[in-house]
Amino acid sequence: MTDINRREALVLAISAAFAPHAFAAEQTQPDHKMPEVKGEHWMGDEQIAMLMYPGMTVLDLIGPQSMFGGLMGAKVYLVAKSLDPVTSDAGVTITPTATFKTCPNDLTVLFTPGGTDGTLAAARDAETLAFMADRGARAKYVTSVCSGSLILGAAGLLKGYKATSHWSVRHVLAGFGAIPTDARVVRDRNRITGAGVTAGLDFGLTMVAELRDPFYAECCQLMAEYDPDPPFNAGSMKTAPPEVKAPMLEMLADFVKKSEALAASTKS
Amino acid sequence: MTDINRREALVLAISAAFAPHAFAAEQTQPDHKMPEVKGEHWMGDEQIAMLMYPGMTVLDLIGPQSMFGGLMGAKVYLVAKSLDPVTSDAGVTITPTATFKTCPNDLTVLFTPGGTDGTLAAARDAETLAFMADRGARAKYVTSVCSGSLILGAAGLLKGYKATSHWSVRHVLAGFGAIPTDARVVRDRNRITGAGVTAGLDFGLTMVAELRDPFYAECCQLMAEYDPDPPFNAGSMKTAPPEVKAPMLEMLADFVKKSEALAASTKS
Repeated sequence: MTDINRREALVLAISAAFAPHAFAAEQTQPDHKMPEVKGEHWMGDEQIAMLMYPGMTVLDLIGPQSMFGGLMGAKVYLVAKSLDPVTSDAGVTITPTATFKTCPNDLTVLFTPGGTDGTLAAARDAETLAFMADRGARAKYVTSVCSGSLILGAAGLLKGYKATSHWSVRHVLAGFGAIPTDARVVRDRNRITGAGVTAGLDFGLTMVAELRDPFYAECCQLMAEYDPDPPFNAGSMKTAPPEVKAPMLEMLADFVKKSEALAASTKS
Repeated sequence: MTDINRREALVLAISAAFAPHAFAAEQTQPDHKMPEVKGEHWMGDEQIAMLMYPGMTVLDLIGPQSMFGGLMGAKVYLVAKSLDPVTSDAGVTITPTATFKTCPNDLTVLFTPGGTDGTLAAARDAETLAFMADRGARAKYVTSVCSGSLILGAAGLLKGYKATSHWSVRHVLAGFGAIPTDARVVRDRNRITGAGVTAGLDFGLTMVAELRDPFYAECCQLMAEYDPDPPFNAGSMKTAPPEVKAPMLEMLADFVKKSEALAASTKS
């Protein structure tokens, strides 16, 4: 493979991230044939399933989806119980593209976003847990962002694995037999979990590098102009001032308590 | 206002960002009465309209929406030509909550996301431009992320203003009479524009601080665990290696040319 082939192929590959009309059709028409392109060796065939449920935090889903969306040839399924539109915690309603029944059986990536009450409901829902446990048993990668790891835990998918979550409930993972680990993206064998909400971007790039290569991920990063410059420095429990941490801890206390109860009732 | 009142109010305020079932209803039922809460002085009444159109880049929309979603009392409208679901460039289909006709006339914030071909189509669509020009003439803030600034420019909303865009088309803004400015978030009077895609997070926090105060924005930042840690350093034209920049420039060349043609045909 020459550099020129590599470049030509990449142009085609990454174009899916930024001008992917054809790709969008591909996502909802899994049997649609890809057009002939130069550099087919840059094409992938990943089957990526992203769980959706009422009350999910939509940025947990869309951060990684935006990076998966650049994987030319991959198929990204937004999976829910039915094809009825799903409303996020902050009122964004998204249409699923597959159901628990129509989602492929053998996945490259199984992913779940987090949230609060909606996440706890999903983590107590037998049908959702059965779907996650089934696909998770065979998926090449089992992944989550934010409190989505509570769903992985409740489905029995984190026993003995290092994992992370939103800072508020990271410790709860121990209740599922996982090893809570404080990092932006945590990998233990084929389990890859991201921290809270916006960690989905760092998680997404990590996954692109894992599924393709670091060069492909760098191209996705430039395309998404991911050169973050937060106007404040309060994004973690290590950097936030005490007067910011206190009300957030107070606000999330009920969610943390309910998450601990979930873990206690799940533990076998 | 004591610190305790401030904290209690904030707990309620920020809860909308993370567990906002009530807030979600508020977004789609603009006449719904807010429940009585302590600390009403922390409530806002912003009217925020976020444009949606086929082919938009969904992360351009969802980054800022996730921050606006934390503004308790604010109403966030996802506005399109009709209430028919709108499909993004990477195949995410979102249901609008308002149309050009039902969107409030007097807005606190008018916002548009970017994209590529879909953005150029929206920037040439008379109905879309009329909506943006009308609401933009009275909105307290006129804003965009990524190539959404091409739509603002085409609607005549950037003449004489400093503004930014996705790195690939920032220079094109000059064709609309704007002053292209290289920064993550650019403010000139009441025009606030963000750079490409992921800049929507920095833009969103900037807007929260502007609409409420920096403390409120820091709480949103902690809740979203926005403590970015990109696994690579290729997110801008200043940091990306030449072998990453070259194929991306090549891939976007057609979009840049079409954007320049749009500006040329719009300039009066």
